[in-house]
Amino acid sequence: MMNPGEMIKDILAKRDSIQNVFFVACGGSLVEFYPPKYFMDAESKHCGAFLYSGKEFVCAAPASLGENSLVLLCSHSGKTPEVLEAAGLAKERGAVVITYAGVAGTPVNQAGDYHIVYGDRTEEGSHYGDSPVLLSLRLMAELLAVTEDYPYLDKVMDGISKIDTVIYNAMDQVSERAKIWGKACERENMMYILGSGPAFGNVYGFAICSMMEMQWQHAAYIHSAEYFHGPFEVTDKNTAYVVLESNGPARCMDERAIRFLKRYGAKYEVVDAKELGADIIDEKVVDYFTPLMFYKVMCVYREELAKLRNHPLSTRRYMGKVAY
Amino acid sequence: MMNPGEMIKDILAKRDSIQNVFFVACGGSLVEFYPPKYFMDAESKHCGAFLYSGKEFVCAAPASLGENSLVLLCSHSGKTPEVLEAAGLAKERGAVVITYAGVAGTPVNQAGDYHIVYGDRTEEGSHYGDSPVLLSLRLMAELLAVTEDYPYLDKVMDGISKIDTVIYNAMDQVSERAKIWGKACERENMMYILGSGPAFGNVYGFAICSMMEMQWQHAAYIHSAEYFHGPFEVTDKNTAYVVLESNGPARCMDERAIRFLKRYGAKYEVVDAKELGADIIDEKVVDYFTPLMFYKVMCVYREELAKLRNHPLSTRRYMGKVAY
Repeated sequence: MMNPGEMIKDILAKRDSIQNVFFVACGGSLVEFYPPKYFMDAESKHCGAFLYSGKEFVCAAPASLGENSLVLLCSHSGKTPEVLEAAGLAKERGAVVITYAGVAGTPVNQAGDYHIVYGDRTEEGSHYGDSPVLLSLRLMAELLAVTEDYPYLDKVMDGISKIDTVIYNAMDQVSERAKIWGKACERENMMYILGSGPAFGNVYGFAICSMMEMQWQHAAYIHSAEYFHGPFEVTDKNTAYVVLESNGPARCMDERAIRFLKRYGAKYEVVDAKELGADIIDEKVVDYFTPLMFYKVMCVYREELAKLRNHPLSTRRYMGKVAY
Repeated sequence: MMNPGEMIKDILAKRDSIQNVFFVACGGSLVEFYPPKYFMDAESKHCGAFLYSGKEFVCAAPASLGENSLVLLCSHSGKTPEVLEAAGLAKERGAVVITYAGVAGTPVNQAGDYHIVYGDRTEEGSHYGDSPVLLSLRLMAELLAVTEDYPYLDKVMDGISKIDTVIYNAMDQVSERAKIWGKACERENMMYILGSGPAFGNVYGFAICSMMEMQWQHAAYIHSAEYFHGPFEVTDKNTAYVVLESNGPARCMDERAIRFLKRYGAKYEVVDAKELGADIIDEKVVDYFTPLMFYKVMCVYREELAKLRNHPLSTRRYMGKVAY
């Protein structure tokens, strides 16, 4: 398998330029693409980036999808029908297609020009530099380093070398408070998840995967800045919130929400990237790394809830069990 | 005030090209920009379009924002601080700025190169062609007609001429079933709103503004295609859903969700764009018009709920009442 740097070199040898990048996936895999899409929006001068749920990409096929497009597709099972459909459209339009799958030998592995098998990383001592989110971040940083003189590729690589330390430290740090939170939320009917910046994908993922899917828990994902334009009106002392507090420029949006919750709420849990030690990664790039830390930290939280409820995270009633 | 066609002509006389468009607003105003952003993604070959909540735009200032950018800003009050901050950034970068406000003489009116006062349209007999969503749609269609030979500007104009008929017919049609729905949902604790395609902005808006803000009602907005990648696991016979069923290519995503709800849910309301008569607008452009129809139709629904609950839609506990 080529590494991301080699892949970009190979792609740019075959194409004059890459004019846009499409990140396409569903559910939890879509979450992996949120930080690299955010990276492109913030850092790229000329290359537009777009994030699509698989079926939406096919239904509303972008007019700008063509030979100078790079399409990244991710499916954990390697079999998601919407992702395969999206790959078909991308190939038909002549785009360069990179596919990610959790396991080898799947239809998704065969569906692109390049493919990445990223493995599972559920066992202890896993390395997180090879997770889809960081592989994609590195791909984008390598692309911009060549095409737009992006100056911080070395800082991205340094961040990748530090991410395991960040993650394992952070997971350790939250183990006790995750138990307290689980206890407090055991019988909660509804949960609001807040956050912003590159971490908003995690806000979405924790709500739809960890809570709705894995705990059959009513939940909503709210952008910290949008909270003040409607959603805050439901806030009271009885409503439960989790806020993912970022450590970069987005932090001010989360802080504002936390100030409000301190005053008008009572049941809120703040998960603070700064306090959890993400800032050993350079400030120019740290924002793109905290989402993965948040993800692993929130896995500790959801595990505690699952234990207390006797509702294992793997329990499903529909997914993979009935036709839909 | 210039009309959108004159505005585009004037802009293109001052700039070689428009390379990207940024739609920036907060809450309900952000919803207005979802369909034109969707239009650009689907129809434009060269001009990238990006949708930002006001503060996020400032915190993660896009590297591609510059002299060849067009920035559209909307604030109903004309005073939203985040929108004014965003205008400052856009001007600083040399972008062309068009601002929308509901009333004249506000700071937002002064913050751009062009400004539009779109009025209120709450009284009977209002004309909807001048709502921000359709003014923006027309601006984008005019832009692409000049720069990319977009072939359906006449169909967009025809749609604008028909939208009042579509809206008033649709509002009439739902008046009875909105009463039934209000009765059924009067004591509902949680409500899931589903939809996809250009109407997803309305899904968001109905959840965060109509339900959370105006009814203090717990709610979540779910993309119909993403529903199957997590959120559907909370579905049971006791959980309430509203599905906005689009009538274009996105319809298949909504239909799939409805099929599932028919089997595993019990409390769901389908609001069907086709049944409500949106298809008197040409099929090449109708998708960009149904969001406004959905908005007005869902105003009928929320009104019934508000009446039954004796909780007027204008009741607030925080917004505009406390400091935040």
